[in-house]
Amino acid sequence: MKIALAQLNYHIGNFESNTKKIIDHIQLAKDSGADLVVFAELAVCGYPPRDYLEFDEFISLCENAAQEIAKHCTEIACIVGLPVKNEILEGKDLFNAAYFIENGKVKSVTKKALLPTYDVFDEYRYFEPATSFKCIDFKGKRIALTICEDLWNINDNPLYVSNPMDELIEEQPDVMINIAASPFSYTHDDERIKVLADNAKKYNLPVFYVNQVGAQTEIIFDGGSLVFDADGVMKAEMKYFEEDLQVFDLTEVEHVRNKYPQPERLTDIEQIHDALILGIRDYFQKSGFTKAVLGLSGGIDSAVVCALACRALGAENVMSVLMPSKFSSDHSVQDALDLVNNIGCMHEIIPIKEVAESFDHILVPAFKGLPFNLAEENIQARIRGIINMAMSNKFGYILLNTSNKSECAVGYGTLYGDMCGAIAVIGDVYKTQVFELAKYINKEREIIPVNTIVKPPSAELRPDQKDSDSLPEYDVLDKILYQHIEKKQGSKAIIEQGFDETLVRKILKMVNIAEFKRYQTPPILRVSPKAFGMGRRMPIVGKHLI
Amino acid sequence: MKIALAQLNYHIGNFESNTKKIIDHIQLAKDSGADLVVFAELAVCGYPPRDYLEFDEFISLCENAAQEIAKHCTEIACIVGLPVKNEILEGKDLFNAAYFIENGKVKSVTKKALLPTYDVFDEYRYFEPATSFKCIDFKGKRIALTICEDLWNINDNPLYVSNPMDELIEEQPDVMINIAASPFSYTHDDERIKVLADNAKKYNLPVFYVNQVGAQTEIIFDGGSLVFDADGVMKAEMKYFEEDLQVFDLTEVEHVRNKYPQPERLTDIEQIHDALILGIRDYFQKSGFTKAVLGLSGGIDSAVVCALACRALGAENVMSVLMPSKFSSDHSVQDALDLVNNIGCMHEIIPIKEVAESFDHILVPAFKGLPFNLAEENIQARIRGIINMAMSNKFGYILLNTSNKSECAVGYGTLYGDMCGAIAVIGDVYKTQVFELAKYINKEREIIPVNTIVKPPSAELRPDQKDSDSLPEYDVLDKILYQHIEKKQGSKAIIEQGFDETLVRKILKMVNIAEFKRYQTPPILRVSPKAFGMGRRMPIVGKHLI
Repeated sequence: MKIALAQLNYHIGNFESNTKKIIDHIQLAKDSGADLVVFAELAVCGYPPRDYLEFDEFISLCENAAQEIAKHCTEIACIVGLPVKNEILEGKDLFNAAYFIENGKVKSVTKKALLPTYDVFDEYRYFEPATSFKCIDFKGKRIALTICEDLWNINDNPLYVSNPMDELIEEQPDVMINIAASPFSYTHDDERIKVLADNAKKYNLPVFYVNQVGAQTEIIFDGGSLVFDADGVMKAEMKYFEEDLQVFDLTEVEHVRNKYPQPERLTDIEQIHDALILGIRDYFQKSGFTKAVLGLSGGIDSAVVCALACRALGAENVMSVLMPSKFSSDHSVQDALDLVNNIGCMHEIIPIKEVAESFDHILVPAFKGLPFNLAEENIQARIRGIINMAMSNKFGYILLNTSNKSECAVGYGTLYGDMCGAIAVIGDVYKTQVFELAKYINKEREIIPVNTIVKPPSAELRPDQKDSDSLPEYDVLDKILYQHIEKKQGSKAIIEQGFDETLVRKILKMVNIAEFKRYQTPPILRVSPKAFGMGRRMPIVGKHLI
Repeated sequence: MKIALAQLNYHIGNFESNTKKIIDHIQLAKDSGADLVVFAELAVCGYPPRDYLEFDEFISLCENAAQEIAKHCTEIACIVGLPVKNEILEGKDLFNAAYFIENGKVKSVTKKALLPTYDVFDEYRYFEPATSFKCIDFKGKRIALTICEDLWNINDNPLYVSNPMDELIEEQPDVMINIAASPFSYTHDDERIKVLADNAKKYNLPVFYVNQVGAQTEIIFDGGSLVFDADGVMKAEMKYFEEDLQVFDLTEVEHVRNKYPQPERLTDIEQIHDALILGIRDYFQKSGFTKAVLGLSGGIDSAVVCALACRALGAENVMSVLMPSKFSSDHSVQDALDLVNNIGCMHEIIPIKEVAESFDHILVPAFKGLPFNLAEENIQARIRGIINMAMSNKFGYILLNTSNKSECAVGYGTLYGDMCGAIAVIGDVYKTQVFELAKYINKEREIIPVNTIVKPPSAELRPDQKDSDSLPEYDVLDKILYQHIEKKQGSKAIIEQGFDETLVRKILKMVNIAEFKRYQTPPILRVSPKAFGMGRRMPIVGKHLI
């Protein structure tokens, strides 16, 4: 039996495009001699459809699309994921399911049992877990089909009390197939490979795993679909961050080792780089835009975002706006211009001094002679926000946000100022990682000016300001933030690791207080196991004593 | 046996204040002769603690607080809600639980079975559902203790497959006690009364129900704790939107009808009015601020928010900023000043013409002679946003957002302009309801100028602009939005109700496209069964074909 894995980039709710793509790949798989083609979890509607699932009309559109797909399933069978109604009227309205389609008809429905409801996942919000399981017989082989998380209760994962494979194995299947929508983080590929290999070994069966690829706003799917033999040896690793279709002979997977070519594994920074480019590209493509705008300060954050945007959209589609104030250093403008020259994007220089002065002037009566402080600093950042948005409104450019994860964590940014934007490109990348990204971008030739990389970071909102006036050095800050955010450690545990008590308490308090700002942050492309946004839900007026 | 219900306003994560409040009310209940005092669901830490629950140190702080509370439970027993660890290492880490405390010791732990995971609720994100149930024996009576949602699988609610009371009733209890954190919406009180009465009747037992009161950012708890006799007749309805402690004699509840005084029921608009005032007050109190700022346009939205803020915080704590542009009509400024005079709040007049002109000037080269359009309209709204935030930063005022639910739905507002603010006061109130609120505010004397109420709504961002240039009349718009948002109807179903097809499709498309703006909206005080925010989670780049 020949099995094709179709690793595709879906668009949530775009039934026309998803259905066409699936039908095209059924044909492609058929032409390649496959007996069965496998599409991802919720392929019909894209993942995660969120509260679209609460609309009956949306569920009907999913069903209609699946029926249309079924018509094209002749001389080949197909597995495709979609939400289906729970007809028993007890429990949640829906199941997260997969159709097995053969001879133009839906032959069986497989339902998901383990529903991830943590981090960015909300599956139990919509779906009832399956409680009974059945293999699928096809061409003399018995298939144990599961959906994504269903294979993850292995290695004593304490999250779940049941394990579908322990029931399916009773029917003595010949092969495991798992369809997934497994979001990228730079740590996730290794976990995934281990979980699938462990399943293969535990049940002594080959495993075919197909993932989605592409970004849905902040959530990025990296592809990397996998095949393992029954000994848990990896037989194939499909492309990362790209669509791919590959056909495998089940007999060969069962017996022959290491036949298929495998791409080279990427480093963490390479993965983040590729993921962010896909994230930018899909945000634009799926929302129907082509051109971006961003403010270019001469600093490293906006430089890295500009370089990534140019790679994602083409330099000719990126407008960079230089907005010097009276506090901007000469080298800032020069560093920004050097980047523009290196990279070839569009640019405008719009000095903000005149507008800042007119704000100062009209605020004189209300401000009653009080001294320059944060209010005036923020006015400058917000003037830049207005100019960026004006360029966006006038020309249809989409504004890219350039805040990094470190400043987003401690609230070192101006709401409605530098925190504006449709999508935050490096909001899940710590400042120390931004430096690594810059070096990686410069690997072949200098794109980001060296001076941008080596000079001390500054917001330049008052004379001689440096980030280090308000924050500890980034290498210390990022380590503490990582323990608190990714590792969910409170102050006590972090101090026990040897960090300074006063500093730890100060930083954790800053993280807590900045929650009101983060609530209004643009969606942040998620590349770590714990990004700000839907995956981290904190009270705003809560008092954080941790 | 005398049972005290303590309906209190907790602050998420503020263990010091919550613990003190609980201990004070144990003493108060003791002084009133109660044998048992009952506090709400997750009273120890406040509800909803969200991802604070993922921090071990937070769970330890909950346990420590409960032990401190236990020390004060002598000569009286107490029931108090808190998260507890799941010690069996299978399933989620925690239970949503209640301690029964007697003689200074935790005597038993009751765990919640039905975990709401819809709308604003995320309980299955954190908690494992209970699967076994046991009554509590106390002073010769047997208590069936349940937690909030545990009583809601009645009347064939299809959400859940189990029903804890069906198991507890086997032990022949004498009384039901339910501790809750049941958020307010203007439809919720009637549902709650029906569910509790139906439980009393079904199990032929008296019911004591205690709710939280107070706002936690956007979620408002209205109190209204209840007592029913075994026939399902309401015996007491505690205060709405205020703390309250009442003591009930179980014998009297069993036998005597209608003894306790009940407050008069409020209309929907009265409830919304009181809820918003509580929402504003608690946002400020719990985040440690006292003074508010808002832009006053002369229109009805900002007038209503100003009036509510003055009632919540005192007029002397509210700064209103009038920011006329060259497109502002004379009557707008006069209407705003009339309101200020009627209400006695602070005000500043800061004309924006000069700043708008300097933006026009510095943008000349970049705008390349293109005609006035949305870009320039938005610049004006954003200048006002900057001024409001400058007043906030200079004086420590908190900015109130004045957008209503209708404009929030269709995206008729400027991101980073009039969409700025720390909390959106009327973001869950449709425009037609805003008019009703204005009339209710004016019930005793004219506070909101009549001209503000009767003139046609306008954003005044270009000459002679009216809302009705871009939108249908609000009474039609709001009906369509209500069907789509609250009733989750797609275009097909709404058109079948008799609404114009083109209009319905246009409006639903606007709602979909505005998702990227709503993602960056401040938290919205929730007063309806379906508010924008955590309770409605939509894809941003999703293509909405419904």
